[in-house]
Amino acid sequence: MKESLNFIYNEQKVLSTLSGVAALLSWDQLTYMPLRGATERSEQSAYISRISHDKIISDKFWNHVQILIKPGNFKSLSDNDKTVVARLEKDLEKARKVPSNFVEKMAKTTSLAYQAWEDARGKNDYKVFEPHLEKIVELEKEYCGYINLPGSRYNSVVDDYEEGMTVNTLRTEFEYLKINLIKLIDKIKSSNLYEKQINLDVKFNLPIQQRISKLILEKMNLPMDQARIDVSTHPFTTSLGNDDIRITTNYDRPGPLSSFYSTIHEAGHALYELGMPRDKYLNTVISDSASVGLNESQSRFWENMIARSKHFWLYFYPVFKKLSSNSFTNISFDDWYRFVNQVKPSLIRVDADELTYCLHVILRFEIEVALLQDEIMVSELPMIWNEKMDEMLGVIPMGDKDGVLQDMHWSGGNFGYFPTYAIGTIYSAQLFNQLTCEKPEIYNDIENGEFGNILNWLRENVHRYGRLLTADEIIKKTCGEGLNSKVYIDYLKEKYLVLYCV
Amino acid sequence: MKESLNFIYNEQKVLSTLSGVAALLSWDQLTYMPLRGATERSEQSAYISRISHDKIISDKFWNHVQILIKPGNFKSLSDNDKTVVARLEKDLEKARKVPSNFVEKMAKTTSLAYQAWEDARGKNDYKVFEPHLEKIVELEKEYCGYINLPGSRYNSVVDDYEEGMTVNTLRTEFEYLKINLIKLIDKIKSSNLYEKQINLDVKFNLPIQQRISKLILEKMNLPMDQARIDVSTHPFTTSLGNDDIRITTNYDRPGPLSSFYSTIHEAGHALYELGMPRDKYLNTVISDSASVGLNESQSRFWENMIARSKHFWLYFYPVFKKLSSNSFTNISFDDWYRFVNQVKPSLIRVDADELTYCLHVILRFEIEVALLQDEIMVSELPMIWNEKMDEMLGVIPMGDKDGVLQDMHWSGGNFGYFPTYAIGTIYSAQLFNQLTCEKPEIYNDIENGEFGNILNWLRENVHRYGRLLTADEIIKKTCGEGLNSKVYIDYLKEKYLVLYCV
Repeated sequence: MKESLNFIYNEQKVLSTLSGVAALLSWDQLTYMPLRGATERSEQSAYISRISHDKIISDKFWNHVQILIKPGNFKSLSDNDKTVVARLEKDLEKARKVPSNFVEKMAKTTSLAYQAWEDARGKNDYKVFEPHLEKIVELEKEYCGYINLPGSRYNSVVDDYEEGMTVNTLRTEFEYLKINLIKLIDKIKSSNLYEKQINLDVKFNLPIQQRISKLILEKMNLPMDQARIDVSTHPFTTSLGNDDIRITTNYDRPGPLSSFYSTIHEAGHALYELGMPRDKYLNTVISDSASVGLNESQSRFWENMIARSKHFWLYFYPVFKKLSSNSFTNISFDDWYRFVNQVKPSLIRVDADELTYCLHVILRFEIEVALLQDEIMVSELPMIWNEKMDEMLGVIPMGDKDGVLQDMHWSGGNFGYFPTYAIGTIYSAQLFNQLTCEKPEIYNDIENGEFGNILNWLRENVHRYGRLLTADEIIKKTCGEGLNSKVYIDYLKEKYLVLYCV
Repeated sequence: MKESLNFIYNEQKVLSTLSGVAALLSWDQLTYMPLRGATERSEQSAYISRISHDKIISDKFWNHVQILIKPGNFKSLSDNDKTVVARLEKDLEKARKVPSNFVEKMAKTTSLAYQAWEDARGKNDYKVFEPHLEKIVELEKEYCGYINLPGSRYNSVVDDYEEGMTVNTLRTEFEYLKINLIKLIDKIKSSNLYEKQINLDVKFNLPIQQRISKLILEKMNLPMDQARIDVSTHPFTTSLGNDDIRITTNYDRPGPLSSFYSTIHEAGHALYELGMPRDKYLNTVISDSASVGLNESQSRFWENMIARSKHFWLYFYPVFKKLSSNSFTNISFDDWYRFVNQVKPSLIRVDADELTYCLHVILRFEIEVALLQDEIMVSELPMIWNEKMDEMLGVIPMGDKDGVLQDMHWSGGNFGYFPTYAIGTIYSAQLFNQLTCEKPEIYNDIENGEFGNILNWLRENVHRYGRLLTADEIIKKTCGEGLNSKVYIDYLKEKYLVLYCV
């Protein structure tokens, strides 16, 4: 037993080490790597992920866990060890369900599919990507066969990102969300202020954007001896170690606040990563985010609940004016605040505003479920996409590039990922609601640009659990109920009906 | 045999992959890593180097090589395969001489010694470092016992960096060098111009330094889709793959040309790395630099032979003036050229001028040999250091920080490395001499800021050999003779006696 405990802790440590190495390989590829380094980099990444995977599915690892999980042995373990062993068994069991040759087949297929997706986007032609997506959908179904969770086939893919989440729950929540978002957007569209929306002609040069990013990271208390910010095409957060979290932003995207909000979003992820349980759980399966959705709730919390609020801008608008050398003195606070929260149904998910964003996600969720349940065909996707866009957002893309081809997720075989964007968004509203009920004085903090108490509350009520609980359990414990899109809709109504005076 | 060939090529490929991963881990640590990432980073690096080392010394690898090297099998191999197998056997045989527990002991000792060295430097107190250096010297002797090359014990350490080089050869060349350098420096010191040397008050701000660095990399034809430049405390070059070479510079060092020359120096290394043999030799033991000294000859070639020459500045001085917004119009070309080649005996090796540099190296060589031959004691080092500084350069450090503690090499156990700096410098003069004899028109190219023909000549006469030949063989083939410090001294005399009008 002593030997088995040593083995499983050592193996988890090695897996953490390898995961940090893999994260560095990928971070560098997306930030600094010279163009022609790509081929060798993919071999380096593949090699590291292969040795990780071999360890995860090794019989030796499994056998040691089985020794520890035996009732006679298990009960004599310490509480910490029990938690780790139980979690580990669940993880390994799931990983071992998937044959190695399937993993390899998936890796090869998605590697080719990613190239084809880029090619198809360049040519604005879905047909180039279609045969690859056909293969991926078949592989996704095969994967669901291995995992084989009860209920809809889709349950087996969504579980990878959101443990225990089901299509039934998502359908209920997303249906409520969809109906109410469409209603709300319609109301706003009928407002006088909607017609008068303007694009403020404000531009921040690179040094100003960098200064603003730096300031907000300081304000959010991101410790820069454990984190750093760089630049990449698509902003992301990655963990190179418990004390080395990297975020990126992009200063070239349209809109004067694009880099500002992506910095806040990624810093929200980074703070979560840095809040993981340590001590006895360091470098174990427990010291990780509870779910992708909960991780997203942390980024959305800071981005939307905090940094798109009126309280936030009461503090930050004067600071912004000063930092940008007063390049927009003639814009009133109300105009600025409305500009920051401008509603405008549009084609691209990543550029969508707070109110329309979840509709983009629900559209993708509906398509994914229908594909895996054989209700629609891959060849029909562009048509279905455009119909749904029209139905939900009232806009139709001119070509596939701005439609069905806009996201890379499907080329990577990441079915089940999209819902986490909406789950995280809903969770963020539930958490903010809970926080402000418990501590209404928080509004003062925000108005004073003080975020220490907020971070402490998140640490205490979300971060410190790591994977000791599932996301659903954490939200229930903290907010008194699980995923509830009504809370999010109520928040949106309160904010946007006032904002647009309807 | 087919199986053995497959195995050895695959294993070399994996070792190349791991070597790129290790290089990235180290590059990131020295450029971007947040402070607190250090502990986990050292574990990541240690893990990768452990699996590499395990592969190199594995019996399986060795046995496959032994199958191929058997006379009956060997003669039926292709020429390429013969070359690879023979080289590989030599490398593995050497690696296998050193027990794994020694490697571990050395790693632990140097890790502690590095900390102690930093501490000692901070306190300007050799005594803090002394007990660690004692241990390292003992380990170096133990290492020499394993390698056990004939002649002086020191032959076994220098061979790691400069295959086949011996203390006898180095003594002869360095003695000639030392005597003549001291004579030359004395002559210059007696010149009127030496007295009148001035420190030009020129400073380039960061954007100007960056622009100048960018320009010289373009001029040197460093392909930026296979390379990049970043910033680190000590400039270095590292290879993350055949198509991904990273160099660094430092814009904060004293002297207006410090970053310029370090960029050129590192770019010289990078061009060599990019010139390695490919095709059948890609990712084999052949596709690597022939020696550390030959690698250094490439950096020194560009830094000294090219970029400190009059021809070079005839082109670059006007360009420099322009790029720096004419911040020094009142300096004549002659003054500038003399400033760039200013001779001034000083305490710190890395800041030394072209003429005094090798004396710093010879001093360290003499100490290392004497330590390994038990002729001096570790405790005597500060005294001996200061005596030798006085004898060779006429300057004596005020404290250990600017003396015996200035370089990190000994804390890392890198005995035998220092001579390669002088070897590379001598080789660079021999190569330049050969090039200008063969193609005197090269001087015109330099005056026109055109370096394509020079690079082609280096590719053809140095780079393309990789490890097909030893450094000594390459120099003999290209220059008609091996290491010859007379060529270097002749070059220095011709340049500096004119420069100082003596």
